[in-house]
Amino acid sequence: MSDTDLGQLSHRPQEHSVPRFAGISTFARLPHTRSLKGVDVAIFGAPFDGGTSFRPGARFGPQAIRQASRLLRAYNYALNVRPFDDLSVIDYGDLQVVPSDIEDTYTLLESEAGVLYANDLFPIAMGGDHSVILPLLRACAAKHGPVSLVQFDAHIDTWENLFGKRYNHSTSIKRAIEEGLIDPRRSIQVGIRATQPFPDDLDRTRGLGLTIVTTEELFARGIPDVTAEILRLVGPKVYLTFDIDFVDPAFAPGTGTPEVGGPGSREVLALLRGLKMLPLVGADVVEVAPAYDQSEITAMLAANVILEIVSLLAWQRRHPPR
Amino acid sequence: MSDTDLGQLSHRPQEHSVPRFAGISTFARLPHTRSLKGVDVAIFGAPFDGGTSFRPGARFGPQAIRQASRLLRAYNYALNVRPFDDLSVIDYGDLQVVPSDIEDTYTLLESEAGVLYANDLFPIAMGGDHSVILPLLRACAAKHGPVSLVQFDAHIDTWENLFGKRYNHSTSIKRAIEEGLIDPRRSIQVGIRATQPFPDDLDRTRGLGLTIVTTEELFARGIPDVTAEILRLVGPKVYLTFDIDFVDPAFAPGTGTPEVGGPGSREVLALLRGLKMLPLVGADVVEVAPAYDQSEITAMLAANVILEIVSLLAWQRRHPPR
Amino acid sequence: MSDTDLGQLSHRPQEHSVPRFAGISTFARLPHTRSLKGVDVAIFGAPFDGGTSFRPGARFGPQAIRQASRLLRAYNYALNVRPFDDLSVIDYGDLQVVPSDIEDTYTLLESEAGVLYANDLFPIAMGGDHSVILPLLRACAAKHGPVSLVQFDAHIDTWENLFGKRYNHSTSIKRAIEEGLIDPRRSIQVGIRATQPFPDDLDRTRGLGLTIVTTEELFARGIPDVTAEILRLVGPKVYLTFDIDFVDPAFAPGTGTPEVGGPGSREVLALLRGLKMLPLVGADVVEVAPAYDQSEITAMLAANVILEIVSLLAWQRRHPPR
Amino acid sequence: MSDTDLGQLSHRPQEHSVPRFAGISTFARLPHTRSLKGVDVAIFGAPFDGGTSFRPGARFGPQAIRQASRLLRAYNYALNVRPFDDLSVIDYGDLQVVPSDIEDTYTLLESEAGVLYANDLFPIAMGGDHSVILPLLRACAAKHGPVSLVQFDAHIDTWENLFGKRYNHSTSIKRAIEEGLIDPRRSIQVGIRATQPFPDDLDRTRGLGLTIVTTEELFARGIPDVTAEILRLVGPKVYLTFDIDFVDPAFAPGTGTPEVGGPGSREVLALLRGLKMLPLVGADVVEVAPAYDQSEITAMLAANVILEIVSLLAWQRRHPPR
Amino acid sequence: MSDTDLGQLSHRPQEHSVPRFAGISTFARLPHTRSLKGVDVAIFGAPFDGGTSFRPGARFGPQAIRQASRLLRAYNYALNVRPFDDLSVIDYGDLQVVPSDIEDTYTLLESEAGVLYANDLFPIAMGGDHSVILPLLRACAAKHGPVSLVQFDAHIDTWENLFGKRYNHSTSIKRAIEEGLIDPRRSIQVGIRATQPFPDDLDRTRGLGLTIVTTEELFARGIPDVTAEILRLVGPKVYLTFDIDFVDPAFAPGTGTPEVGGPGSREVLALLRGLKMLPLVGADVVEVAPAYDQSEITAMLAANVILEIVSLLAWQRRHPPR
Amino acid sequence: MSDTDLGQLSHRPQEHSVPRFAGISTFARLPHTRSLKGVDVAIFGAPFDGGTSFRPGARFGPQAIRQASRLLRAYNYALNVRPFDDLSVIDYGDLQVVPSDIEDTYTLLESEAGVLYANDLFPIAMGGDHSVILPLLRACAAKHGPVSLVQFDAHIDTWENLFGKRYNHSTSIKRAIEEGLIDPRRSIQVGIRATQPFPDDLDRTRGLGLTIVTTEELFARGIPDVTAEILRLVGPKVYLTFDIDFVDPAFAPGTGTPEVGGPGSREVLALLRGLKMLPLVGADVVEVAPAYDQSEITAMLAANVILEIVSLLAWQRRHPPR
Repeated sequence: MSDTDLGQLSHRPQEHSVPRFAGISTFARLPHTRSLKGVDVAIFGAPFDGGTSFRPGARFGPQAIRQASRLLRAYNYALNVRPFDDLSVIDYGDLQVVPSDIEDTYTLLESEAGVLYANDLFPIAMGGDHSVILPLLRACAAKHGPVSLVQFDAHIDTWENLFGKRYNHSTSIKRAIEEGLIDPRRSIQVGIRATQPFPDDLDRTRGLGLTIVTTEELFARGIPDVTAEILRLVGPKVYLTFDIDFVDPAFAPGTGTPEVGGPGSREVLALLRGLKMLPLVGADVVEVAPAYDQSEITAMLAANVILEIVSLLAWQRRHPPR
Repeated sequence: MSDTDLGQLSHRPQEHSVPRFAGISTFARLPHTRSLKGVDVAIFGAPFDGGTSFRPGARFGPQAIRQASRLLRAYNYALNVRPFDDLSVIDYGDLQVVPSDIEDTYTLLESEAGVLYANDLFPIAMGGDHSVILPLLRACAAKHGPVSLVQFDAHIDTWENLFGKRYNHSTSIKRAIEEGLIDPRRSIQVGIRATQPFPDDLDRTRGLGLTIVTTEELFARGIPDVTAEILRLVGPKVYLTFDIDFVDPAFAPGTGTPEVGGPGSREVLALLRGLKMLPLVGADVVEVAPAYDQSEITAMLAANVILEIVSLLAWQRRHPPR
Repeated sequence: MSDTDLGQLSHRPQEHSVPRFAGISTFARLPHTRSLKGVDVAIFGAPFDGGTSFRPGARFGPQAIRQASRLLRAYNYALNVRPFDDLSVIDYGDLQVVPSDIEDTYTLLESEAGVLYANDLFPIAMGGDHSVILPLLRACAAKHGPVSLVQFDAHIDTWENLFGKRYNHSTSIKRAIEEGLIDPRRSIQVGIRATQPFPDDLDRTRGLGLTIVTTEELFARGIPDVTAEILRLVGPKVYLTFDIDFVDPAFAPGTGTPEVGGPGSREVLALLRGLKMLPLVGADVVEVAPAYDQSEITAMLAANVILEIVSLLAWQRRHPPR
Repeated sequence: MSDTDLGQLSHRPQEHSVPRFAGISTFARLPHTRSLKGVDVAIFGAPFDGGTSFRPGARFGPQAIRQASRLLRAYNYALNVRPFDDLSVIDYGDLQVVPSDIEDTYTLLESEAGVLYANDLFPIAMGGDHSVILPLLRACAAKHGPVSLVQFDAHIDTWENLFGKRYNHSTSIKRAIEEGLIDPRRSIQVGIRATQPFPDDLDRTRGLGLTIVTTEELFARGIPDVTAEILRLVGPKVYLTFDIDFVDPAFAPGTGTPEVGGPGSREVLALLRGLKMLPLVGADVVEVAPAYDQSEITAMLAANVILEIVSLLAWQRRHPPR
Repeated sequence: MSDTDLGQLSHRPQEHSVPRFAGISTFARLPHTRSLKGVDVAIFGAPFDGGTSFRPGARFGPQAIRQASRLLRAYNYALNVRPFDDLSVIDYGDLQVVPSDIEDTYTLLESEAGVLYANDLFPIAMGGDHSVILPLLRACAAKHGPVSLVQFDAHIDTWENLFGKRYNHSTSIKRAIEEGLIDPRRSIQVGIRATQPFPDDLDRTRGLGLTIVTTEELFARGIPDVTAEILRLVGPKVYLTFDIDFVDPAFAPGTGTPEVGGPGSREVLALLRGLKMLPLVGADVVEVAPAYDQSEITAMLAANVILEIVSLLAWQRRHPPR
Repeated sequence: MSDTDLGQLSHRPQEHSVPRFAGISTFARLPHTRSLKGVDVAIFGAPFDGGTSFRPGARFGPQAIRQASRLLRAYNYALNVRPFDDLSVIDYGDLQVVPSDIEDTYTLLESEAGVLYANDLFPIAMGGDHSVILPLLRACAAKHGPVSLVQFDAHIDTWENLFGKRYNHSTSIKRAIEEGLIDPRRSIQVGIRATQPFPDDLDRTRGLGLTIVTTEELFARGIPDVTAEILRLVGPKVYLTFDIDFVDPAFAPGTGTPEVGGPGSREVLALLRGLKMLPLVGADVVEVAPAYDQSEITAMLAANVILEIVSLLAWQRRHPPR
């Protein structure tokens, strides 16, 4: 298949001709290619769930998000952008993983993601569980140095270890700080909630320098106040990580460690659209576990989160800083 | 079975004697009859989904709504009415359709719905996909002339064509305007959201005369403000169409083209109850696709929407204009 | 609705005109009436599951079987009969039950079923759990005296009591024998399998006079050998009870106490078709619990069992004993 | 197994060593014991659903809640308590029930719950349908005299009878008032909504002395206003009953009689946390029917409700009245 | 993406390196290309379900089969072939369809399938409902003239019309005969069962020249006897159509019109492997409706049927007629 | 909780008093204890799925099997034994695992299983994926020396490595042979089927000394012939491993790598009952992945497999070799 053939998979000409249920599933029916020339944004899968502490299955996340993403259309009126036309966006496929070995997987993910950063494009990962963020941040920091992290998540993921192990989805952020991949003073966690193993978990996390906005605070303060704080706090380079369990299980049942009492999908969109000035350099959406999903609603939400992230980039392209 | 026998199916005497899971399923356990004498409201199915662009299955919508509706009880305290007692309401059964031929189906639906309008009663259709609205509006306009449309929907349904075809669930409203069935200047779409195929889709739709209130505007303005606008805008005869994908997929997963970021069921009830002065002449609830539902929650919501519509009529009966 | 209207629900004219997913769901799209004049067979629901010892939900059995039965067509080539044309068959609706009171329910079921027997027609009950057989047998015996029971079931249902109670789905057959409703010497249980509470359960049951053919024996001997024994054993009046858990859970997951290692659907059909000389006077199909079903496969099998029973009757009508 | 062995099941040492999916499922991985010495709170199951009027299955509620509760962790930062450490809490197992006999079950439940009250500990029941509250209130009143009831529920449960029967999940509160178990003047129902069988149902219930806050009023007034009213209204001894159908079916599909238009999980947490001064003596969470649940989200919410109740008690222990 | 890149998707090097859950889903992880040079077998989707008479959803069949097919491995020991290595096999993607217009879809499918036949390769279609066979047979006959049809199916699909329409999944075979696309005298239907609308349906079908082997006959005669008859009967060019409802719903619940009493998956494999001398020129597998599937077991079976068909071709390549 | 208390959980007194849905779920409602004095058989969980190559989730296998096992009763008439009475059997709980580290998990499993073997009792493991067999065999061999393996499985599990790794569920048997844990000359794999990665996979496996009976051979030869071969082949000490994917996915959908064309549940029971002379020293049942199960049918089958294994031991106890 030549690039020309693959052009047939581009969504633009298909809007009113090829049904959305037809064809090989790529993200938003974008071209699938590994050629990076002229590409602005590469969306890829990191199908690893060996760092999961409860329900596994996020290895099937990329496939599910791709499938659900076929309903995405070309124009996002909320930001007045055409994300997949204003920018050159591809579905890069999945990175290589080793299901039973987290450290080998880390090496592979870091190396492959590094290629993307080296090519000056914007990578968006589809997890996989949250443990995949560590190698992705390593690749990001290799390019950009320590970045600000904006984390939407029900969990702090800053434990020292879990089951005696340093690498998994509950320790990634702690490791990222230790490795100097993120600047905790200019990083923020939004949506933390639920019971914690230890009374000092939140304080200890704040002690690492991170700002925490619990779900309760998010709703008490209101979304505009929180997005304003995020924009004030972060440095010039931001990595956005979106753990789907940030959202309430009614809206996102398909995940490994759901926590009741979270925001709905409307709040998710409002939050992301409030961040259009966020100076992003990389992003991921993680923890979609399709075996626990209901009629793809979780995967659809994840697909929309990616759409909104690309829309932010498109908005920034249309509104370059003077 | 005589009418007397059928009277046994009436819900009133059953409230405390016949369990709601027992018996042949009619809408709200109402009598099933085709005799229209003395009937105020006829609820019927239009089980056609040949106009669907993504997930089919709305052909099973009427059956699912009937089943879920068995939990509906006699008194709606929100409007202080007994909808099925204040008015004579029947389950008319399903209209005839031809699954593989939309134009034949249109002919059948228009003709059968025309009988209902000719008998001066209020028809409420259970879809079926949104393509069924066109013949229903044809029948409505044959009786009432061009009407105002109040459309709760995530989608504009005003495309010129889809896959090169003029008739399907994405083009019905455009056709209805072209055929002079509705007066776009006195019609309104509420709940529009999600990406659009083309940047000018909303403007083009507004250019047809329709007022659009996006989901974002709905929540920014508040429900009372929007219901007030609806009541101000519409003419003396209103057809209400409720596409279940107006609601967020967490509340209504059982539909063909769900869009994240929508209202919840509480907002649905508040909107409908805010429209009790709406001069209705016909209504439908469409796009319930049970194969994607979860424990009938979508069908239950659809059943409640119908209950609220009948309740509006009952309220108006109790509060005749002076 | 007049009888004429109801005639529209008769399946014959609809074969090639009305889609099977359309309309109010009655069994096999048969007329729903309580008028018994000229009726040969009345199919009705007994939606009671208060006698269930494990998974409840069989109260929704009649509704599920009705829905699945819409796929049944007019001609059964296996026996060369048109069951719903050779005989006058109706959907009688559901009998009255009291969900929380088994003895009150027994009184109601016995009384209503008695009306059917009194009218000289053949009743086929859709359960409900297996506890409903006791009042149905009482009504049967009131008309016919002690009958032979042919029971397809994974369980013996002859316990003395359960949780200290005399009436429930595990004790019905014991009660039926005690009350002289069936003649155990001319009755047979086929398909018994699985672990038993006590080592003497089978011997004790045989001690009551019942013949038992375990699932293992059924397959060791072969279906023709077992149907021959059934035909030899029974008296001139037979009540057939079909507990859906007779079938393997792969074929019938939607039931309350499934037992692995059972027959498949093909064996079910072969068994029933092998009994066309069986002098039936009544029948039931019980223990369909739709909340545990998968895409209605259990309900479809139950619907087909009823179809085959009616087909036996139609065959007998066509082949009167000389 | 000795108490020492059982100590291995205590959740504290396991936080970072034993995965939450491992081991025998007790509530929140608490010790399972019937020894009451030194115990502050006993969580137990009342697996009876014989009082259900629509979808049965709440008999599997305790098991489902136990399983989902394994995700609960030790520290509740919302109230700054460690509920399972500040208090001695056990999983007492399930009380004895007779599935087919509500009155026998009532005797058993009252007697067993009475032992808990007699030992001066705080019992929390996991239903089971709402009919189980009556024997639990009997046991409570035997210890404490008439108590205040705080009922979160979509339904009033004050019918005189249902299907001619006095005992079931729709009549329990009426019976409790008649038997003098609760003081209706100091009791309140929050979340009532949906259609009622009779126009006077709410007025009649208010006529019994009960205060009713409908879901509509709850949202119109706001949670703080309602919690303030609750705290003002109740007497010195309060029994809290939480029917999971209080919550919208999007958040709690796994229940027997869901009603659309309810609160979400965030509002549930806010309500409970607003009641930390509530002088509780007993509690239950009822109507979880797992066969209708989606990926355990209903059971998780129920588990969190129990956690919040225990947290209230822990907060009160830490903040004794001066 | 260049052909070289696409080579990375070839399954051979991935056997022990790339996990099967990773990457863009093509059939059996084969290359996706529209370049036909050197290709022996092209597998493609025909995602049309507008001809369905009961449950729709087969439009999602190709996607589901692709996903499930990822478990297929390189070597089929049953025939001692490496189907995807012995032959050059590609995933051609999906053909264009118009969801709401069967005649337009027919034109498109015939034209696109014609290209495949014109290129002298072997096409295997993934349906879609059984109506897609008509344009596929038109394309086949244009190349090969009238062919023998070997049809595994529970249904005869030879009705004159359905709902007054000539084209749909129940009439395709009748049309194919009328249009001279197949030679009925050398064609056979295996697996027919279930009730028929009219008593003469089977005789009428036999009257068209077709040989019918019912499911009952299949099992009475045994698989070797039936495969021998097939091989004897057919002419030199055979089109094989496999309707997944040939199989019992326990093994293939994910279909639109399931019929109980069918063969299991083991019999399917035995039948296909018994046909290795069958002179095939084209094939399809139709009626997989994933919304009704259970954990992809239906889609897996469909994928294995395609694997066995390709294996037959590979076997024939290895064993050329002398 | 004292031993006396735990005695309440013993299934014997509960047969007719405590409902099977009530109480804390242990295997077959057996006592849960870690005290090994006087114990004959210890059933335990090994909830590890880090060795899975496709669908994960077997970590929830033990919990699901425990729950489903509650339907098991005391007497197995097939072998005329009371397995849980003839022998002293306990639910030992779950062994410790480290979800993200297979080698650490191996150390823990080997050590804990070693305690069981050291205490001269018979361990039965509930997986977990098939990778758990390696440490279990290490513990077994430490006690018994190299044993015969009888493996019911669709897969050979003898790959050299997978994704470059030595330890996972596809390589366990190869490792077991290399480590001298089993004697391949006296070991047998039954049920192998499906495509293999490489043409020499089966020959290579036979080359290791293992006897292979494919599913096709199993059915061609018949069960008695195969059980006779097994009994002839094995040495004096046998470890039985039952991978649930041995069974067809219609009967066992809840597993990670299902393969169509397998045996049904009836054949499973016949095979196991045919092995009552098998000199067993240990056993496991693995690869139950509940997230993919349907109404617990897979877990029920797994529970019955364990029941049959304990029954074999009970039979041997009753029939000691002379």
